[in-house]
Amino acid sequence: MAKKISGIGQKNILLDIDDTLFPSTEFSSLARKNALNAMISLGIDSDYTTLHSKLGSIISRHGSNYQNHFGDLCKELRIRRPGRYVAAAVAAYHDTKTAIQPFPKAPLALMRLKQDGHRLYVATNGDSIKQWDKLIRLRLALFFDDVFVSEELGVQKGEGFYRKILKALGAEAEGCIMVGDREDVDIIPAKAIGMKTVRLLSGKYAKGTSSADQTIKDIGDLPTAVRRL
Amino acid sequence: MAKKISGIGQKNILLDIDDTLFPSTEFSSLARKNALNAMISLGIDSDYTTLHSKLGSIISRHGSNYQNHFGDLCKELRIRRPGRYVAAAVAAYHDTKTAIQPFPKAPLALMRLKQDGHRLYVATNGDSIKQWDKLIRLRLALFFDDVFVSEELGVQKGEGFYRKILKALGAEAEGCIMVGDREDVDIIPAKAIGMKTVRLLSGKYAKGTSSADQTIKDIGDLPTAVRRL
Repeated sequence: MAKKISGIGQKNILLDIDDTLFPSTEFSSLARKNALNAMISLGIDSDYTTLHSKLGSIISRHGSNYQNHFGDLCKELRIRRPGRYVAAAVAAYHDTKTAIQPFPKAPLALMRLKQDGHRLYVATNGDSIKQWDKLIRLRLALFFDDVFVSEELGVQKGEGFYRKILKALGAEAEGCIMVGDREDVDIIPAKAIGMKTVRLLSGKYAKGTSSADQTIKDIGDLPTAVRRL
Repeated sequence: MAKKISGIGQKNILLDIDDTLFPSTEFSSLARKNALNAMISLGIDSDYTTLHSKLGSIISRHGSNYQNHFGDLCKELRIRRPGRYVAAAVAAYHDTKTAIQPFPKAPLALMRLKQDGHRLYVATNGDSIKQWDKLIRLRLALFFDDVFVSEELGVQKGEGFYRKILKALGAEAEGCIMVGDREDVDIIPAKAIGMKTVRLLSGKYAKGTSSADQTIKDIGDLPTAVRRL
């Protein structure tokens, strides 16, 4: 007679996207670099250092989700007909963003977790279409049983966000594991409501202490970290 | 002694973009098809014929420049969390649009016109950044001495549009040739103010009589048509 093992040790594993499934910090920086170089290729009357520094200030002022970085950059440089430069920058920026690749060991790690019988979910802050776009570009969408985006839940990552996910899953916190790169939004609130946590040290938030139950440096180590919980 | 031939027979040649430099009608139709198939790949609860017909009505209602075609499509299908489908559709749509290729003989035809001593300009209706994006994607931007877009000129294609271009060039109408696929906006008004005209029979406006000075079926025949004017 077959032993009934399904259900035993099965967890709901929630994963962040940016700097957890792919090196988002690196790709953003490369996208900006490619955009500025595309403006230079089309003959903009400025140099890389000036462009980079001005773009940096615009991004700090308006945030990285602002839609008109390159238009503002041309305005600051007093370019009379900016269409060609904005178009070149936006094209190069988007081409880089659409070429995002997962961390090399991410697909195999997710496959192993599925084989171990776990259910996988995405838990991410942001705009629903943008976050889905990343999952589709990364070719990882089909690994996940469901995707929870702050825009759709109506609340940013925090205790309330994770409670809403528990309710949607009809699950207890004890059976859930949250995996992410940020101590403040991924680890602390998930832990506070009783979930287990795994912190991935990656991207611009890699520094600083970790209060997570497990801390890993490579997403490839996630299946082992989960087994230890 | 070298004969001074520069200037003799040199023309200002204005070219439209869509369905003149590349098969825009075909790419738009392919982009929509790829977008709908991407929604189906992600498991949308509908079939291609239904999706295609509903999208067609949305486009007729709002025009092809409307930004939320796929969002509206999901709304009509009463899809509760449309993020994944909209993201998949938009990604596939943009990937097709960014893969546009010029008519096969366009680059060589433009190069021959340059070698014949003519100056080339773009004359197009539309949004400046979108039209520049096409020139950049088509790798044709550097052929043109300048680009005139209705958004920047503040007027759509018509006699006023072409007069503004003449003024900007400091040129007489007799020394200018307008090349485009549309009788109504490319040929008739340019001819009315005294420019020579070449009509390219291509895309959705290929049918109907032509009043242009020259009519061609392939952009590769443009250098010959120009010599005949």
